[in-house]
Amino acid sequence: MSLRPTVDFLLHDWLKVESLQSRDRFADHSRETFDAVLGTCERIAREKYAPFNRLVDTQEPHFDGEKVILPQATHDAYKAYAESGMLSAAQDYEVGGMQLPYTVEAAANAFFAMASVSIGSGMLTSGNANLLMVHGTDLQKQVFAANEFNGRFSGTMCLSEPQAGSSLSDVTTRATPDGEGFEADALGARYRLKGNKMWISSGEHELSENIIHLVLAKIPDANGQLVPGVKGISLFIVPKKLVDTHGQLTGERNDVALAGLNHKCGWRGTTNTLLNFGEGKYPVRGEAGGGLDGAGSGGGLDGTGSGAIGYLVGKPGEGLRCMFHMMNEARIGVGMAATMLGMAGYYASLDYAKNRPQGRPTGAGGKDASQPQVRIIEHADIKRMLLAQKAYSEGALALALYSARLVDEQHTGTAEDADVARLLLEVLTPIVKSFPSEWCLEANSLAIQIHGGYGYTRDFPVEQYWRDNRLNMIHEGTHGIQAMDLLGRKVLMENGRGLQLLAERMLATAAKAEANWGPEAAALRDALQQIGQATRQAWAGAEPAQALANAVPYLQAFGHTVIAWIWLDVAASLGKDNAPAAQGRQAACRYFFRYELPKIGAWLNVVSSRDPTCADLPEEAF
Amino acid sequence: MSLRPTVDFLLHDWLKVESLQSRDRFADHSRETFDAVLGTCERIAREKYAPFNRLVDTQEPHFDGEKVILPQATHDAYKAYAESGMLSAAQDYEVGGMQLPYTVEAAANAFFAMASVSIGSGMLTSGNANLLMVHGTDLQKQVFAANEFNGRFSGTMCLSEPQAGSSLSDVTTRATPDGEGFEADALGARYRLKGNKMWISSGEHELSENIIHLVLAKIPDANGQLVPGVKGISLFIVPKKLVDTHGQLTGERNDVALAGLNHKCGWRGTTNTLLNFGEGKYPVRGEAGGGLDGAGSGGGLDGTGSGAIGYLVGKPGEGLRCMFHMMNEARIGVGMAATMLGMAGYYASLDYAKNRPQGRPTGAGGKDASQPQVRIIEHADIKRMLLAQKAYSEGALALALYSARLVDEQHTGTAEDADVARLLLEVLTPIVKSFPSEWCLEANSLAIQIHGGYGYTRDFPVEQYWRDNRLNMIHEGTHGIQAMDLLGRKVLMENGRGLQLLAERMLATAAKAEANWGPEAAALRDALQQIGQATRQAWAGAEPAQALANAVPYLQAFGHTVIAWIWLDVAASLGKDNAPAAQGRQAACRYFFRYELPKIGAWLNVVSSRDPTCADLPEEAF
Repeated sequence: MSLRPTVDFLLHDWLKVESLQSRDRFADHSRETFDAVLGTCERIAREKYAPFNRLVDTQEPHFDGEKVILPQATHDAYKAYAESGMLSAAQDYEVGGMQLPYTVEAAANAFFAMASVSIGSGMLTSGNANLLMVHGTDLQKQVFAANEFNGRFSGTMCLSEPQAGSSLSDVTTRATPDGEGFEADALGARYRLKGNKMWISSGEHELSENIIHLVLAKIPDANGQLVPGVKGISLFIVPKKLVDTHGQLTGERNDVALAGLNHKCGWRGTTNTLLNFGEGKYPVRGEAGGGLDGAGSGGGLDGTGSGAIGYLVGKPGEGLRCMFHMMNEARIGVGMAATMLGMAGYYASLDYAKNRPQGRPTGAGGKDASQPQVRIIEHADIKRMLLAQKAYSEGALALALYSARLVDEQHTGTAEDADVARLLLEVLTPIVKSFPSEWCLEANSLAIQIHGGYGYTRDFPVEQYWRDNRLNMIHEGTHGIQAMDLLGRKVLMENGRGLQLLAERMLATAAKAEANWGPEAAALRDALQQIGQATRQAWAGAEPAQALANAVPYLQAFGHTVIAWIWLDVAASLGKDNAPAAQGRQAACRYFFRYELPKIGAWLNVVSSRDPTCADLPEEAF
Repeated sequence: MSLRPTVDFLLHDWLKVESLQSRDRFADHSRETFDAVLGTCERIAREKYAPFNRLVDTQEPHFDGEKVILPQATHDAYKAYAESGMLSAAQDYEVGGMQLPYTVEAAANAFFAMASVSIGSGMLTSGNANLLMVHGTDLQKQVFAANEFNGRFSGTMCLSEPQAGSSLSDVTTRATPDGEGFEADALGARYRLKGNKMWISSGEHELSENIIHLVLAKIPDANGQLVPGVKGISLFIVPKKLVDTHGQLTGERNDVALAGLNHKCGWRGTTNTLLNFGEGKYPVRGEAGGGLDGAGSGGGLDGTGSGAIGYLVGKPGEGLRCMFHMMNEARIGVGMAATMLGMAGYYASLDYAKNRPQGRPTGAGGKDASQPQVRIIEHADIKRMLLAQKAYSEGALALALYSARLVDEQHTGTAEDADVARLLLEVLTPIVKSFPSEWCLEANSLAIQIHGGYGYTRDFPVEQYWRDNRLNMIHEGTHGIQAMDLLGRKVLMENGRGLQLLAERMLATAAKAEANWGPEAAALRDALQQIGQATRQAWAGAEPAQALANAVPYLQAFGHTVIAWIWLDVAASLGKDNAPAAQGRQAACRYFFRYELPKIGAWLNVVSSRDPTCADLPEEAF
């Protein structure tokens, strides 16, 4: 059981990615170059990731007082990933990139997520560097991004704080201009940062020569006050170790200190940290970092901490806008991680089901105990649990790659196509992130169930997939945040044009599928109508709090409708193919329409009626 | 937030357990004696269990080559539990019991399950002893059961084998009569057992002086062959250490050897073992164990193992029938464990939600960031996640206590009432076990979600509840087994009379609720009709394999209908009460009818149509 044929089918037969060759940017690419990238990633994932997935779960990162110690396997995997060139896969040739379509890059990264999501690929590092390529100065690109692309440096994103998780407007990390003399610092306007950042993945380790933190912080106003809300937020590059304008380490450490490691339920191979910025553990003069003569205000060596040195990215107050560039990629990445955990569990339980003898078929006269046991894949309920996993996971993978294809369209399509792609992505991103977070977690639970008691032991991989996957509904915007984003913003924006565009695509699929998939096409049209009606009724004359009270059920119904559409589109593309793989996809489509899509009615009921049962309940009644 | 008021409400206001005083068996009991038992259990759970729940998760049992080492806290909790008298709570006064109604016993044990499910109460031990009180000889009761009730010995149930998990007909543990001379052994007909038993909870430890294994094994026929199927299965008492007829240890160890500890995803405080019976690690002569002169065939000391000594319980071939007595109690116990994990997560997340500030309400003009953050319980989606947990967990608790009340009715009601109670229990047991296994697990996931990133760390208790709870869909009969039991046996037995009786009770509730809960009463009647129709259509002219292909969706729909009924009955019992607690229960009822019950349509569709999508898919298409 290999992921590769599924990926190949989705990329080539369904999405026709080779057609991207007609774009200038991708003119040098072909099926052969795509295959080479996928083959390399598949091999590295098989050799350097998969064998160590349980090991990194067991040997959690620990802090020896000076350094965070990770298993050798993580170092080896990091090195192999960096050497593959994937960190800069999407970048221009001139900065050493491959100009690979994002669709292919996302597909290639899927192999790592499936092999060991918690060893991790370079998603944060390349996302960090990609952001700098868009919003950074030339020197920031050269010093920071380029060294992230080549793997010398790694990257983080620092948004949350202990008192401000989902609520970024409450960020209190403070960035003070570092005296007059530093305004012209070649690496960017220089600030001193003080504050605490929570949940920072890969915030401290020895995998790379340096760690480049992208940090959201607020610049105080003239009275030294922080502006409330998200408008006051700016974005800063805060390297763990100071560098000069050539990207060389100056030998001085920046004042970014590990305050603690988070001990998680799963995803234990990835270091997750609480970081203190500028609290004085590593007091920093910072003169050598391209600064002037040390006469600035920031050169304190008094041990109380004058702040960690940070370089402004973009304009003051535009931090969140810049960061969103990275957050959208991160959300697609989270969805892909959840998806690939789902696939991993599917393959593991499929393998188990094909080999484990247990029980007998129920015949007309009951079970005949004198017959040998059958393999459990012969039981209907095991098949149901396998097909559910396939429908959730492959459906989510198809959606993720479809969305990646929209990213390529946004970047290389005609202006009109790019705009359509942008809007579709706005509407689909919450689903790409939330559907697999919820349903591929459910898939992992089914994978455990197929294994019976064995699935609940650490001798089999599925319990770890399930634990790892539970994070995905939380990080990079919780389920609730995705739901508010969808119902409160995305389906309304530009007068509902995003939703309209999505509806058009769904109707086009229904029309295409009509001949062979009549009942499913009708069911999709009906679901779409229900979504439209619930959207209108949720907002009809309502206060936002009322409209959004049932945003999560709305998100769930929307997600199921989107995946039904994706499956119907896949199934319609198969024509009359009846090879086993095609039969499997047709069955997954049927499964989704018969077992899953009918659930949307229950979810949408409470949206349409703006059911106040939960919102109105007084606190003391719980 | 205390469980006690909820338990008191359910026991007294709703179930009116004091009315049991009118039964001879319970004549000495009163609200005061019930309160004393609940108070004692609440206190022991608070002092000896709750503080150590994380500790037993971290310090897993380990085998030092001779002994299984458990934390001191587990020893202390075991001792306190035994001293409470709860092990024999339901037994007659004359054997030292309290003659406590099972309803109150179950409620009292709930406190332990909530405080630390994996330290565990004495469920297996008292279940084991209760079985012997029904099926054992006088001496077996005296030697084994009595010493389990007083805590000197503990008990296990040994059903599964590595090659036979859910499929008991494939048990291959072999029990050979131990020579002519031992037939008259006072402790029961003596056999030698050889075989392996898997997933044995508390199979090896030093908590008690001895461990009494109840083991399913097959007695070979005249040709030395094992009879296929469940009919050949007999039940044996196999003590870890041999005892004399006074219950004293003879000093000789029986040949029951620990082959391995299972390392689980959760529920780590409970030792779970693979046991080898009679493989020669502890070769046993067994003369002192009440046997004759050692001339029997079993006295081998050759180290190859002549088998572990076991004493037959009941008649040969009736082992499964005897064991089912214990399995039904065990299934209710599993449901209660799942339920109390759900409650534990609910209380933990309610506490967190009341104290964690984060974000602001969505006003007409958006969020006003200049205002202080509010506590997250003020957000509608947090309330939704709290109310869902309450509806699942308290609903499941109410059902479990309702079922426990049926057990009391079965044991002390009139012949007619007892028979009705028996049949209702047959139908409800799969739900009592399966509903909380699935939905209180979902509740735990919501408890994590409310905590955000903190919920995913081991610094908060909720991730452990979620891991612990995942076992409950697996042990004591998987979800699939419960579903086959329900649709394949329970709703059909005695010409569907059990289902009919349940329907009558539901309709009685609907009638009672009509005045204040009209729409809900109608929805319950409608759900009941859908269940009846789906049951008929599933079986109409179908082969069993077809009828049962969608047994799990049937189980899910049935479970949701049962919990809706329970909530409506609870709500109807409240009258016009509008105290906060009553408001909370009314809201949970509304929540369940509006958000949950509508889901049954999607589940029942595939049952009614006998949807073959999963069952018909050939293996190679996955």
